[in-house]
Amino acid sequence: MNETVAKVLQYVDENHETAVERLFSLLRIPSISTQKAHKDDCRKAARWLVDELESLGFSAGLRDVSWAEPGNPMVVGHDEGNAEKSQSGQTHVLFYGHYDVQPTDPDALWQSAPFEPCLKEDASGRKVIVARGASDDKGQVMTFVEACRAWKAVHGRLPVAVSFLLEGEEESGGENLLPFLMANKEELKADVALICDTAMPDRKTPAITTSLRGTVAEEIELVAATHDLHSGMYGNAAANPAYLLCQLIAGLRDETGRITLPGFYDGVVVPDAQLRQQWQALYPDDSALLGEVGLSCAAGEDGFSAIEQTWCRPSFEVNGITGGYQDDGFKTVIPARASAKLSFRLVAGQDPLKIRDSFRAYVRDFLPEDVSVTFTPHGASAGFAVQKESAFLSATLDALTEEWGKQAVMTGCGGSIPVAEEVREALGMDAFMVGFAQADDRIHSPNEQYGLDSFHHGIRSWVRILAALAK
Amino acid sequence: MNETVAKVLQYVDENHETAVERLFSLLRIPSISTQKAHKDDCRKAARWLVDELESLGFSAGLRDVSWAEPGNPMVVGHDEGNAEKSQSGQTHVLFYGHYDVQPTDPDALWQSAPFEPCLKEDASGRKVIVARGASDDKGQVMTFVEACRAWKAVHGRLPVAVSFLLEGEEESGGENLLPFLMANKEELKADVALICDTAMPDRKTPAITTSLRGTVAEEIELVAATHDLHSGMYGNAAANPAYLLCQLIAGLRDETGRITLPGFYDGVVVPDAQLRQQWQALYPDDSALLGEVGLSCAAGEDGFSAIEQTWCRPSFEVNGITGGYQDDGFKTVIPARASAKLSFRLVAGQDPLKIRDSFRAYVRDFLPEDVSVTFTPHGASAGFAVQKESAFLSATLDALTEEWGKQAVMTGCGGSIPVAEEVREALGMDAFMVGFAQADDRIHSPNEQYGLDSFHHGIRSWVRILAALAK
Repeated sequence: MNETVAKVLQYVDENHETAVERLFSLLRIPSISTQKAHKDDCRKAARWLVDELESLGFSAGLRDVSWAEPGNPMVVGHDEGNAEKSQSGQTHVLFYGHYDVQPTDPDALWQSAPFEPCLKEDASGRKVIVARGASDDKGQVMTFVEACRAWKAVHGRLPVAVSFLLEGEEESGGENLLPFLMANKEELKADVALICDTAMPDRKTPAITTSLRGTVAEEIELVAATHDLHSGMYGNAAANPAYLLCQLIAGLRDETGRITLPGFYDGVVVPDAQLRQQWQALYPDDSALLGEVGLSCAAGEDGFSAIEQTWCRPSFEVNGITGGYQDDGFKTVIPARASAKLSFRLVAGQDPLKIRDSFRAYVRDFLPEDVSVTFTPHGASAGFAVQKESAFLSATLDALTEEWGKQAVMTGCGGSIPVAEEVREALGMDAFMVGFAQADDRIHSPNEQYGLDSFHHGIRSWVRILAALAK
Repeated sequence: MNETVAKVLQYVDENHETAVERLFSLLRIPSISTQKAHKDDCRKAARWLVDELESLGFSAGLRDVSWAEPGNPMVVGHDEGNAEKSQSGQTHVLFYGHYDVQPTDPDALWQSAPFEPCLKEDASGRKVIVARGASDDKGQVMTFVEACRAWKAVHGRLPVAVSFLLEGEEESGGENLLPFLMANKEELKADVALICDTAMPDRKTPAITTSLRGTVAEEIELVAATHDLHSGMYGNAAANPAYLLCQLIAGLRDETGRITLPGFYDGVVVPDAQLRQQWQALYPDDSALLGEVGLSCAAGEDGFSAIEQTWCRPSFEVNGITGGYQDDGFKTVIPARASAKLSFRLVAGQDPLKIRDSFRAYVRDFLPEDVSVTFTPHGASAGFAVQKESAFLSATLDALTEEWGKQAVMTGCGGSIPVAEEVREALGMDAFMVGFAQADDRIHSPNEQYGLDSFHHGIRSWVRILAALAK
């Protein structure tokens, strides 16, 4: 290991206690963004971060946003060394995190006060910081801040140009982020974004989340007769929209689990064998993903494991369905209407609007003359995948591998992380999601925690990554 | 026409006004069986009928029942001539009707007080009696009572043995009827039951309803994961019970609309060409049945018209379905559970219990290992059809044809009429449903009416039928 980096890591190790104390200060601010009563607290947390960045030699400030509620300020900071590095063509990274937190209810289930952070040992003897926001996302934000501090303390400068963008609305819709990025393109544009808001696949394996799924969500309502009918008088002869809805939904997959819409898989790339092997090492069988929710077998497309089905394959889901009589007992009615909330999860390469059109065409073509349909769109976003050939990507993976002593993997995420997609959309650059949280950190739940090991190795990981990204 | 009958018909014509007055007296009694406040009124109506029957030479009385609520008395009457006719092997008929009525709400929509019967002219100039119960079922009950009166007045005797069974709980569950029939088998057994509680297919065509559909109703609930899942994290890999429910339901019909359960059509008989032609004359195209509810095309099995699909073919319906998120907007959830209320309408010949078993076996066989199912039965009853070769049936059809000057038809009914099935079950005899109501009589609704022509030709029809059934 490079001596320059080794000194910084040594600083991190020697000053870990004070880093924890600083995190505790931030955790004491109840910056709940969904509750108006805490609006000032959100601003206070933002201000706290501005002060921190300024103390590290960043030019930082609050930036008010008002495209949508709640309008908590963005924290933006640029390192004093950025201009010089820009002139010399040095790498520029934009770090993203959020300072707002989830509400604390149900409060009765907390074993310590949510905004009085404390150190505890879990059942296995692992030391953890317990507080609302410990893991999501204040602890993770501070891993990067502390890495910057250590570089500055030891060498007086950062190895790459660094800007910060810290949001205060991630837990409450985050609707101001995209317009803010769009309105400040030139200022925020960098070579790569580093996002610290994700978890590791397990305690030991570092990872970059390199793909996300987008969504096309659609509500459909079928209407047949003018009113609910008696199923004796009309049963068989009258179109039953609840039955037709079932037929229509069932027809969207074939017997191998593949989605039947024409053109649906256009642009979908199957990950290479090496990546699939890495994933298999993490999830040796389907129950590794599904066991904890009471399931055992992958329910989607034949030929893909459970983890592949969620990380790299598009899906179709019934999120809600309703029609006819719902209460106790029985009513022999043919409902006049039935509706469903349906969604497709998309991977990179698929075009959400084409898929919406293809879905609507399928439905219209399917329905008999007597049945009308109303479509209500509920959002459409593309899937996301980083450039696999990027030198930044391999450098980041190598740095993580060195820190954790275990090959870093590229994981997928079956859901959406809007910021990564929005950074790509607004700023046209890649975003690496590197996080040190654990699946059992109870984010959004009582007794949220962040392992001291997550925090410590997280800081050390960034120290190495900043060096690795330098040219 | 036989002179004996002609004299009775003449009596009916000449005394029609007093018959209407008697009906008015009965209509003035607010015998609403679903409302406790009217319990005494129900008894009063029953008593009124007992008095009528006694005045016609019947041995009649109230019979209390208490197997279930509300426990309104049965009216049972036997003609004084029955014993003699029984000895001579004369036909014995049991007439069934009900004296209870539906509630009157919404009261504001009545144009005259519901229990102050009056004569009005409808838009076409047709004279109608307006009152709650005018058509359902007091007017219809009195057609038979008045036919008996006319026979007695003219000839001093009835041509066949006649017993009455008039119920006071038809509109409130009628749960006492079957146990009462079972407990009084010997007393109530006759050669054929005549039930007057149905409508004619149109203004001119007399009909006997000769088939009814039974039902197998079943609720199923599918459960997969231990809790609702995030559709990003698990979508594709986790079994989605709402989707599986759709697949399962869709699979119950094939592309021709036939129900796919093994053995489902065992015992089903297709009506002969003559009957199908009669039905086609009544319903020349599918919109004749479906048009008034906003539909145009038969949605069931290929090869059968809309009316055939409801009158003589078994069906499968989704009566209710629910799962996942139902409120406004969207929630990207994979529901842990989904349920449906499903029913099959059965025709005579099908075995409801076998069909229930076949359905359950299909569901169990269909579901993947990770998904469990709970079945909740909601009743099972066989379909019903009268003996088509019966001499009573052809005699009744002929009598109706003579009275109305138009070929009487055998119609089906897609729903259930419990009394017909219960008479068959308890007393082992056929039941002919002959009624003179019209589709626009607004039964169960405000401004219920019964045409004066329905009442008049109804009485005359029974006069002829009583003669026709005599040996």
